[in-house]
Amino acid sequence: MQLVSGKSDAGGGLRERKKRATRAALAEAAVRLAAERGVEKVTVEAISAAAGVSVRTFFNYFDTRDDAFVTIDADARARIRRSVLDAPAALSPLDALREAIGTELAEAEQRHELWRLHAEVLRTSPHLLVRSLSAHMADETELAEALAERVRAGSGPSCGAPAAAASDEERRAAPDLYPRLLAAVATTAVRVSLEHWCAHQEERSFADVFQETFSLLAAGLPAPPAR
Amino acid sequence: MQLVSGKSDAGGGLRERKKRATRAALAEAAVRLAAERGVEKVTVEAISAAAGVSVRTFFNYFDTRDDAFVTIDADARARIRRSVLDAPAALSPLDALREAIGTELAEAEQRHELWRLHAEVLRTSPHLLVRSLSAHMADETELAEALAERVRAGSGPSCGAPAAAASDEERRAAPDLYPRLLAAVATTAVRVSLEHWCAHQEERSFADVFQETFSLLAAGLPAPPAR
Repeated sequence: MQLVSGKSDAGGGLRERKKRATRAALAEAAVRLAAERGVEKVTVEAISAAAGVSVRTFFNYFDTRDDAFVTIDADARARIRRSVLDAPAALSPLDALREAIGTELAEAEQRHELWRLHAEVLRTSPHLLVRSLSAHMADETELAEALAERVRAGSGPSCGAPAAAASDEERRAAPDLYPRLLAAVATTAVRVSLEHWCAHQEERSFADVFQETFSLLAAGLPAPPAR
Repeated sequence: MQLVSGKSDAGGGLRERKKRATRAALAEAAVRLAAERGVEKVTVEAISAAAGVSVRTFFNYFDTRDDAFVTIDADARARIRRSVLDAPAALSPLDALREAIGTELAEAEQRHELWRLHAEVLRTSPHLLVRSLSAHMADETELAEALAERVRAGSGPSCGAPAAAASDEERRAAPDLYPRLLAAVATTAVRVSLEHWCAHQEERSFADVFQETFSLLAAGLPAPPAR
């Protein structure tokens, strides 16, 4: 859905979309081969061949073979940050994030088998797991920064309060905790949604579980009604 | 605070408290030695000597040397689950959890240097990190089970709705997502509180950051007020 044409932002452009498709194909090939043969037996040559590109092209996207295993959705994460910044001002930060992530996960039902394989590959390769965790934490920080920017923009002079009213100290103390918490909690909520949906695939769609999860967050995690 | 005498529950009893103190001393010695020398150079003999116990005693608490590095607060996690189950019925599940975790983290200011060392040790030992992540996920599951039990108890016959009113299917579908989400989000919130407090130690107490974090969760993560 983010891939419709005619957009000139970071998400659009034919050239940009081709690059994304190539990167995604390489990452997917890497994970599938590793799940099949074990990480150590997968060469850059095999990954490139499986994705239908040359070894030279592989190295346009990744510095080392291991880089191809670490993150399989780097582009999606960048698009989520962009959407958070571009969402209508009337949306709360939580709702902006819910929309952005919901759009990216519209194909979760088709993608989750690959994600499961990716998790399996990481579990069997501690050194890749360590790198993947670092990438995950860096991503959380970048998302928190995008949310902080949105919060600052939303509480700027146009809201009636002069920007100078907040001292440097206040500005440092307050927005820091909120966007960090929101980024981390939303990421956790996505994981829980996926895990829950995986265990209940016959009963519910992923979108349904995802929306219920974010509604629970927005409502302050109230106890479910007595039955 | 959980260690005051006269309690006859899972947390009390002199014998029980002595065992906990020994386990904690061994885990702390293991982490401090590993941070100093590197995990591979730390022997069971050295850990036992640093904690002032015999090697035989070490093996009463841990099956292998590596087990001593994996979790440094296993007892605290068990106490949190117990507190969640024992909290007054009037508290919401989120508030019961906030109370339970807040009590356990009352000494966070003294403990965090050890937690930081522990994180450092795990970062340098991928195989321990993998085991620690598994322990963390198992703990999240156990906490979710305690929360599910609390939710079930709170919505039982005493609340006016006959227990039989919920079909097997409803019972399976509903409590599952909520307690899992609450356990995972609260764990994430604790991590964010600790990280934020570590970066702002001169300005705020840990308790202050922790309470603000859980208030944000209870309020549904609203945007901070415009300044």
